Amino acid sequence: MKNFSGTPGTFLGMILRIAQFSFAAGSIASIATTPSFFNFTAFCYLIASMALQIIWSFALALLDAYALVRKKVLLNPVLISLFVVGDWVTATLSLAAASASAGITVLYFHDMGNCNFGEECQKYQISVAFAFMSWISISISSLIMLWLLAAG
Amino acid sequence: MKNFSGTPGTFLGMILRIAQFSFAAGSIASIATTPSFFNFTAFCYLIASMALQIIWSFALALLDAYALVRKKVLLNPVLISLFVVGDWVTATLSLAAASASAGITVLYFHDMGNCNFGEECQKYQISVAFAFMSWISISISSLIMLWLLAAG
Repeated sequence: MKNFSGTPGTFLGMILRIAQFSFAAGSIASIATTPSFFNFTAFCYLIASMALQIIWSFALALLDAYALVRKKVLLNPVLISLFVVGDWVTATLSLAAASASAGITVLYFHDMGNCNFGEECQKYQISVAFAFMSWISISISSLIMLWLLAAG
Repeated sequence: MKNFSGTPGTFLGMILRIAQFSFAAGSIASIATTPSFFNFTAFCYLIASMALQIIWSFALALLDAYALVRKKVLLNPVLISLFVVGDWVTATLSLAAASASAGITVLYFHDMGNCNFGEECQKYQISVAFAFMSWISISISSLIMLWLLAAG
């Protein structure tokens, strides 16, 4: 397997993982501090999905850091297959959760005029924005992983 | 480039394209017949996204049919790159639109108790289900295309 920038065990790969779990943590922090998020199924799903994203990306960031420090190469086909499946599952769940929450945020902000929940509305928007940023970084990782696996 | 099942110009490839635009057409037919879909940004976005899906998948289904009838091979790297980009863009837009609409449907059905829009609610649900089925078939096509391009 060819080793290019962004693959597991490289500096860019680790930066992408750190971006993923940081944005996901920002998203949870923003929405979990609103008093009424539990009334919305989509927001609960967003929290669950972002929590999964944090666990997955944090574990892979640690693995990347370990590989960088010990100068190990992580390009084992079985390991990469596992990363591909995990990345695609979390990326799909993150996009779905971010879009569902964005749909509700737009419904309250745009379709029903001004949002009646006061400061909470801004927090919903910030959380959705963070979730989309997390999705962008995980989708870059997913594409790199699939490319690496397919290119052999 | 290796020619395997599901690549452009194969029978399975054409079946996937037909499934994509049929489900997308079902989704539009179901939501566009409700009298109040234009009040929801997410539902308008769903229609726009599914319309794009129909145009893209129908054009590629025609190309597949042409390749099958004339027994031509469509495995040109430039052509495949174009298909990869188009597939990924439409797949992402479809998932985002389906999730945003699903978020709103769940909000009305589950979070707010029974939906007050009568028969419309059922149509919203059917439309979202069709949109997800369309996304599943386009995502299979996208993975095959990216694999084909990366494997060379």
